[in-house]
Amino acid sequence: MGAKAHETLVLSGSDVGRLLGSKGLHAFMDALIESLETAIRGYDPSVTQIPVRSGFNYTEPASGLIEWMPLYKSGSEVVLKLVGYHPDNPANHALPTIISSVYAYDTTTGHLKAIVDGVLLNALRTGAASAVASKYLAKQDSSILGLIGCGAQAVTQLHALSRVFGIEQVLFHDTDQSAMETFPSRVDMLGMEVELIPSQIEAIVSMSDIISTATSIAVDEGPLFGDMKTQDHLHINAVGSDFPGKVELPVELLRRGLVCPDFEEQAMHEGECQQLYIHEIGPSIDTILKSPEEYAVAKENLSVFDSTGWALEDQVTLDLILEYAEVYETGKRIAIEDLSGDARNPYASIPMGGRLDDLALQDLFHLKPTT
Amino acid sequence: MGAKAHETLVLSGSDVGRLLGSKGLHAFMDALIESLETAIRGYDPSVTQIPVRSGFNYTEPASGLIEWMPLYKSGSEVVLKLVGYHPDNPANHALPTIISSVYAYDTTTGHLKAIVDGVLLNALRTGAASAVASKYLAKQDSSILGLIGCGAQAVTQLHALSRVFGIEQVLFHDTDQSAMETFPSRVDMLGMEVELIPSQIEAIVSMSDIISTATSIAVDEGPLFGDMKTQDHLHINAVGSDFPGKVELPVELLRRGLVCPDFEEQAMHEGECQQLYIHEIGPSIDTILKSPEEYAVAKENLSVFDSTGWALEDQVTLDLILEYAEVYETGKRIAIEDLSGDARNPYASIPMGGRLDDLALQDLFHLKPTT
Repeated sequence: MGAKAHETLVLSGSDVGRLLGSKGLHAFMDALIESLETAIRGYDPSVTQIPVRSGFNYTEPASGLIEWMPLYKSGSEVVLKLVGYHPDNPANHALPTIISSVYAYDTTTGHLKAIVDGVLLNALRTGAASAVASKYLAKQDSSILGLIGCGAQAVTQLHALSRVFGIEQVLFHDTDQSAMETFPSRVDMLGMEVELIPSQIEAIVSMSDIISTATSIAVDEGPLFGDMKTQDHLHINAVGSDFPGKVELPVELLRRGLVCPDFEEQAMHEGECQQLYIHEIGPSIDTILKSPEEYAVAKENLSVFDSTGWALEDQVTLDLILEYAEVYETGKRIAIEDLSGDARNPYASIPMGGRLDDLALQDLFHLKPTT
Repeated sequence: MGAKAHETLVLSGSDVGRLLGSKGLHAFMDALIESLETAIRGYDPSVTQIPVRSGFNYTEPASGLIEWMPLYKSGSEVVLKLVGYHPDNPANHALPTIISSVYAYDTTTGHLKAIVDGVLLNALRTGAASAVASKYLAKQDSSILGLIGCGAQAVTQLHALSRVFGIEQVLFHDTDQSAMETFPSRVDMLGMEVELIPSQIEAIVSMSDIISTATSIAVDEGPLFGDMKTQDHLHINAVGSDFPGKVELPVELLRRGLVCPDFEEQAMHEGECQQLYIHEIGPSIDTILKSPEEYAVAKENLSVFDSTGWALEDQVTLDLILEYAEVYETGKRIAIEDLSGDARNPYASIPMGGRLDDLALQDLFHLKPTT
């Protein structure tokens, strides 16, 4: 395609949606799960540097958090995801809680290669991460999936997990009645032959083979349920914990199971691992994937994937989206960076005849050259 | 203008150049110096949070650094500047050493308000910062300006300083002959009546009233000159030190003068202040501006502004550019974030009839709906 070397590819949210429509939603998710599995298994911190994310959180003008998640892949790219979390958005501004954008930089020159809307990317990668973790930690013939929290993340949890497991029944629960009611229509487009059963949390916890928790429970108000009996082999993807003080699962349950964080340092700060001493935390997910035989026993026993969100997942998802954007010629290419002028003259891009003194407002309406 | 609330304003490098041409280069610089002076004097760390910048630096495929500089202004915005520093760019890729972009987020919702090319912005704010610092630390009737390093930053140093002082002579030096030779033609458009005199470093250091150093001297190869006699009232803007081990000025000179960093914690890590003990470092520039009478004596004595680059400068410059972009209706407004769909359905933006399975490549050429 006619890509110019120094333009920036801008992929909007609807571009990413169109791309998935073109590639095929299942086909994309399958490719993403496979790519992510390969990347996690091959993860080498000397090649891919992932600092703990950092950000600003505040209460004015509304409760909010804006954070950035950087990743450096040696000899290749820097990826930076910006995520805004503003829980009052839906009620006050008819906007999603999570708004996000992802930036990719070429490490040869520092050129901004791409800007990609991060909302769909974020949901896709979170779903795919649970599918990969569950593949190694859940019982292979799992057929009952429990979903606690039926927002945006629940859609991709169900989608991704159904690509790896023969899901037959989905028990779902949300404290928000409208989320409960609309959930079946939102997953209808996945074309799945599963039974969708509105359920109480207790039924979900006691009956499911796999559970994904993806709620907006407030800081210091967790866990979502008290300790109770579960299937011996239950695997839980704890997706919602991503902030200091926010937890979804009871500590007693965590202590009985093998708790595998995506990114230990971050999970101890803002995931379910906040509730554990370091010696109670199991191996990170990349360790599991590197020695699957060693941890195969986890499939028959209680396990938790503490999914706080890992920049490696963003990078893998971004790269796959960019690959398909190339194939399907999607997105806009825009010259944002001024790279053509005299590198030693910051004023080179100012039009010749650019005036030195203030242009009076009335001049705006007859733009003739002035001397 | 027809701005839609949830679009993102994209201002390319040439948009920013056009804007400066419209507003008038001197008029813009005057407004920037004034805004920056007001912002520095009013700087309140409880309102504006500026963490120390962070980044990745590497040697493959070429020596490079990509870093991010975040700023949070309470109740208003988060600004994040990304800067790439790749010194082999001019020789190997015909690209500038510094490539940069700046992102502004609305803290009410997390919406990405604007993306602005940072190359010109960076040069403008670095020039304006020296002008503000020199206004408080240099002799008021300074007329001889020395420039050591004649690259992009030297152009805006000269421009900004000439707006505050009656500069009559400019003594300039660069180790790169072509930078020396092209410097007069690059500043010609400023329309200044000054004498431009190619000079040796020694002459610059001994004769100037104000000096700006803005070189690419390598790590561990500084300082640019040995200690020597200067004008008693000399003020130096040390612009080039921005990396651990990179320094421009001799430590003896620093010890004789009042050294004022823009951002102390950062300057101790990567500025001239690296060479000093903490008790040898003077007040930060905002302290000077808050009590100008107290530090007026600095104008008659040796002083150094250790300008490592402060996110406050980026934010002020960005806001001014955005203000003029509104007035002159410059830039593109693009819907990048997908904010219109069902916030609970990440797949809402996938076109209806979006397929689930892989679209064979040949299908790309007859895009009819498939069932």
